[in-house]
Amino acid sequence: MPPKTAEEKLALFREIDKRAAFTQWLGVELNHCADGRAELALPFRPEFAQHNGFLHGALVGFLIDYACAWAGGSMSAGPVVTSQFQVNFVAPGLGDRFIGIGEVVKAGKRQYVTRAEAFAETEGERKLIAIGSATIVPL
Amino acid sequence: MPPKTAEEKLALFREIDKRAAFTQWLGVELNHCADGRAELALPFRPEFAQHNGFLHGALVGFLIDYACAWAGGSMSAGPVVTSQFQVNFVAPGLGDRFIGIGEVVKAGKRQYVTRAEAFAETEGERKLIAIGSATIVPL
Amino acid sequence: MPPKTAEEKLALFREIDKRAAFTQWLGVELNHCADGRAELALPFRPEFAQHNGFLHGALVGFLIDYACAWAGGSMSAGPVVTSQFQVNFVAPGLGDRFIGIGEVVKAGKRQYVTRAEAFAETEGERKLIAIGSATIVPL
Amino acid sequence: MPPKTAEEKLALFREIDKRAAFTQWLGVELNHCADGRAELALPFRPEFAQHNGFLHGALVGFLIDYACAWAGGSMSAGPVVTSQFQVNFVAPGLGDRFIGIGEVVKAGKRQYVTRAEAFAETEGERKLIAIGSATIVPL
Repeated sequence: MPPKTAEEKLALFREIDKRAAFTQWLGVELNHCADGRAELALPFRPEFAQHNGFLHGALVGFLIDYACAWAGGSMSAGPVVTSQFQVNFVAPGLGDRFIGIGEVVKAGKRQYVTRAEAFAETEGERKLIAIGSATIVPL
Repeated sequence: MPPKTAEEKLALFREIDKRAAFTQWLGVELNHCADGRAELALPFRPEFAQHNGFLHGALVGFLIDYACAWAGGSMSAGPVVTSQFQVNFVAPGLGDRFIGIGEVVKAGKRQYVTRAEAFAETEGERKLIAIGSATIVPL
Repeated sequence: MPPKTAEEKLALFREIDKRAAFTQWLGVELNHCADGRAELALPFRPEFAQHNGFLHGALVGFLIDYACAWAGGSMSAGPVVTSQFQVNFVAPGLGDRFIGIGEVVKAGKRQYVTRAEAFAETEGERKLIAIGSATIVPL
Repeated sequence: MPPKTAEEKLALFREIDKRAAFTQWLGVELNHCADGRAELALPFRPEFAQHNGFLHGALVGFLIDYACAWAGGSMSAGPVVTSQFQVNFVAPGLGDRFIGIGEVVKAGKRQYVTRAEAFAETEGERKLIAIGSATIVPL
């Protein structure tokens, strides 16, 4: 049976996430995922840094893509895949943890148009570090 | 003194790469980087997988972004940063190792327009898994 | 002397726009342009249609690009150019007139990261038809 | 009956194009469209210019989007729509006519990943002015 409530869906998504080795290594937390919106948190660890100590751009890209994918997942009866994503960087990724917030702009039958923002958080203060968008395809 | 030959530049880039914790963890190899072209290889490890065992999309994005950045770096006297990048996925990332090939399409004074392809390699056979582009800014 | 007030800037931008043959042909109206935000309107004419009678996708792209460029222009002392833009379509462009709304997300020294939304308006009701983003470079 | 040969398809596509008011106004010519590749030409007219006399960026975007769409159309049994496209500008659009060349990188069941280049042509010499990509959806 497909999951019915937002809570059941969130539990299922966390299960899927646990089977994904890369996101397990990252330790990313799916904090919210319902009704076309998702929010995730990535506590910083030194292994995530590029050569200046900032969060590596590929992991900023991850926050955008993943927030978009889970936002899409919240609208879908089954799994989803990313068809394409893009990121515009606006500030260096310097913080204690990083936040990705995604939303579905339009849920079509064949695909979801989504967008996301990524933030660096330092002692609870959020600073925008990137914006992006993605096309998410329900399978 | 700035590095002069392609060999000196490649040695410098590998030095920079060693100071970047995330790329050290990945074990990515910069195999070529000169005259506006770069090629890098990422031997697969199970930690890189998403829930189906394929290379995680964020790491496909990494291959695109990094190949573009190093292609740009090969044209620049100093360090570079990615301003924006985008990825279109074309096939699941299933292979022994993964290859990113980037090229500078246009080297302007203020920015480099670059594009890249990512491949999965299985027993030496390459299969295209993503295309992308990036705007790289010399500092 | 560079223009000082928002009104002077808007008047200058409309002057520039008048020297641009394509936007003159389109009849696009720059309704607001200050403090990193721009809004423009394009009254529909049959020449703008694709084969189903909707606003042609290239003109939806125009609304995104132009709204981003003017949003950037409002932050700049001089002229700007678009370095790259991207558009995600969410609904057919069917309406009496079309609206592009752009905003600067981050105004750096070398470039502005901007995003925009395009709407179709029918009897005053707005419907989202596309989202997008652009990198705008001050000259 | 669906068209079978490349010639029949090209004739059909030119028919569709004639019903599109905007491309009729532009006078764009579909010179080649088969096996996942398309080439089109846009002879320059003064109405196409931005304020410096170059081809307007929205029309450079048109060349990219349209070349991608027709490349996708050549692989499809029926009509196609653009889901998203992006453009990186590399040089001002200055020339007698402009060329868009698109290719399908991957033709999936649900969507085609495509990319394109746009050129300015002056007395037969081509100069690259933009690169881009698009996701094209068969209906």
